[in-house]
Amino acid sequence: MARPETPVNIEEKLAKVTEHWSPKTVLEANGLEFKAAKVQGEFVWHDHPEGDELFLVVRGELTIDLEDRPSAVLRAGEMFVVPRGVRHRPRAEQECEIVIMDPPGVVNTGAVTSDLTAAEEWI
Amino acid sequence: MARPETPVNIEEKLAKVTEHWSPKTVLEANGLEFKAAKVQGEFVWHDHPEGDELFLVVRGELTIDLEDRPSAVLRAGEMFVVPRGVRHRPRAEQECEIVIMDPPGVVNTGAVTSDLTAAEEWI
Repeated sequence: MARPETPVNIEEKLAKVTEHWSPKTVLEANGLEFKAAKVQGEFVWHDHPEGDELFLVVRGELTIDLEDRPSAVLRAGEMFVVPRGVRHRPRAEQECEIVIMDPPGVVNTGAVTSDLTAAEEWI
Repeated sequence: MARPETPVNIEEKLAKVTEHWSPKTVLEANGLEFKAAKVQGEFVWHDHPEGDELFLVVRGELTIDLEDRPSAVLRAGEMFVVPRGVRHRPRAEQECEIVIMDPPGVVNTGAVTSDLTAAEEWI
């Protein structure tokens, strides 16, 4: 899908997301993809050798456990970067709505194949 | 400044921004810089040959006039990408709070030197 030529409304995109842990691509800039996702529960430990992963919380609270440092707790309006190659596990007690930014081709579960592994899709 | 190891609260960063049209860097990911800015009035026409420029409106309404297509009007929670090299002019009747994402070293006014040209600074 080509880059949208009109503004992308994050709430409208999130409203189209029906599954947890299944990020949908909404925008591309400088070769990086922005994805909208809803998450709840505990994800799998994984990492992304392709690049840094940026998280922005739109609604709710997201905890990101990290292998080598204290967990990060993000609330609405907060951003955090998981550096390239750092193993991490996102989790959220209640449903949480997020935007993430990744290099193209990044799989949500990294090299781990899981029931949670999602195919890339634009919405 | 190194990348922050704790979440970046966008509202807290915006509260530290005292000048219009003077983006302050708050985060880096995949070699790109995220900057918080307050804008009001009309900016200068310019472009960025270094890369795409992403806009996210946090509060208020931002119009981005574009040389080759209809203007984009962004409200809170909306994102838009000005492609590399496309001349554009952001403007806002009322004060508007935004986050932008640029490649490193991008000057806010592009190649145009203006009273509005701002030096790079982390907050």
